[in-house]
Amino acid sequence: MKPFATTLSFAERMITPCGQRTERRLSHMRGMYQDIAETEAILRRDDPLIYEVYAGGVPEKEGQLPHCLTVLYPGQVGDEYYMTKGHFHVAMDTAEIYLGLEGEGYLLMQTKEGDSQALEMERGTIAYIPPYWAHRTVNTGKGPFVFFAVWPGHAGHDYGTIEESGFLKLVMERDGQPVLIPNPRYR
Amino acid sequence: MKPFATTLSFAERMITPCGQRTERRLSHMRGMYQDIAETEAILRRDDPLIYEVYAGGVPEKEGQLPHCLTVLYPGQVGDEYYMTKGHFHVAMDTAEIYLGLEGEGYLLMQTKEGDSQALEMERGTIAYIPPYWAHRTVNTGKGPFVFFAVWPGHAGHDYGTIEESGFLKLVMERDGQPVLIPNPRYR
Repeated sequence: MKPFATTLSFAERMITPCGQRTERRLSHMRGMYQDIAETEAILRRDDPLIYEVYAGGVPEKEGQLPHCLTVLYPGQVGDEYYMTKGHFHVAMDTAEIYLGLEGEGYLLMQTKEGDSQALEMERGTIAYIPPYWAHRTVNTGKGPFVFFAVWPGHAGHDYGTIEESGFLKLVMERDGQPVLIPNPRYR
Repeated sequence: MKPFATTLSFAERMITPCGQRTERRLSHMRGMYQDIAETEAILRRDDPLIYEVYAGGVPEKEGQLPHCLTVLYPGQVGDEYYMTKGHFHVAMDTAEIYLGLEGEGYLLMQTKEGDSQALEMERGTIAYIPPYWAHRTVNTGKGPFVFFAVWPGHAGHDYGTIEESGFLKLVMERDGQPVLIPNPRYR
């Protein structure tokens, strides 16, 4: 494999050339937001773009460092802020690292043993997700929440566990401020 | 291990809190620049700071993602631009990734089989160093060349091979411009 370079455009919020661009719209996250009636009401009118992921084009193999730029848009489904799907790594003993570039939000994390932690992120935050912690980001700001992520190539992505269990904590707007509350539907 | 956050200050060019700050002065790189007489002449007057590394404080263990901010200062030893020591990974089959944040320079890479490649870096460049490639950065600009780096925790650092062999290419100033030339002392 030969060395190569791509460009992270801070202003345009993209990686070019991009290995793969993924769009996550509300229809891809059906049932993940607390207010299911509101989700369906929005989807009858529109299918808003929640986040985009620009992947760096590196093989998902041991020793490699796949990476991406995530652009999580501002918005809410009812009182709940826009968020990513969130996942565990299949190889549970692998970390991930985020560098905040723009905007603000929360990084929610949890273990299968039921530990939960939230880190506030903004431009310049280096957030370290240790092995064994599932991770989801939440945009609590007025503009796009943008961060660069790197993970070990053999990590693998397990989205299914979170799709079934949900996250322990929700990030909801209360009196104009984000608050973390227990997720009554967590199982 | 618990999740944690640090702050990368783009303006102050540091990570706080920092796991470990390393200074590399010219005296730490004796014999690495082409002009040995000039190196010694500078060292009789001064011991200039060539670069600083702010490490993120993550264990160097498999599954983890150690990371750092490198601040490589502008300057020359004779006609040769300031550079980092450069290294191979001990676990040769591990990659590294750089995100350029400020300034400009070259990322020099080479394999033990004698392949050589140089990538130009500036703010926003994502430079991917695949497994098996040694790597050194060179500041060819007027201000600090600053980049964020991430590597797999089990990579390990082999500085000795480069200390003995040197790099295949040198980056020298010729008529005010950086040029790559073969290293006559490479062995």
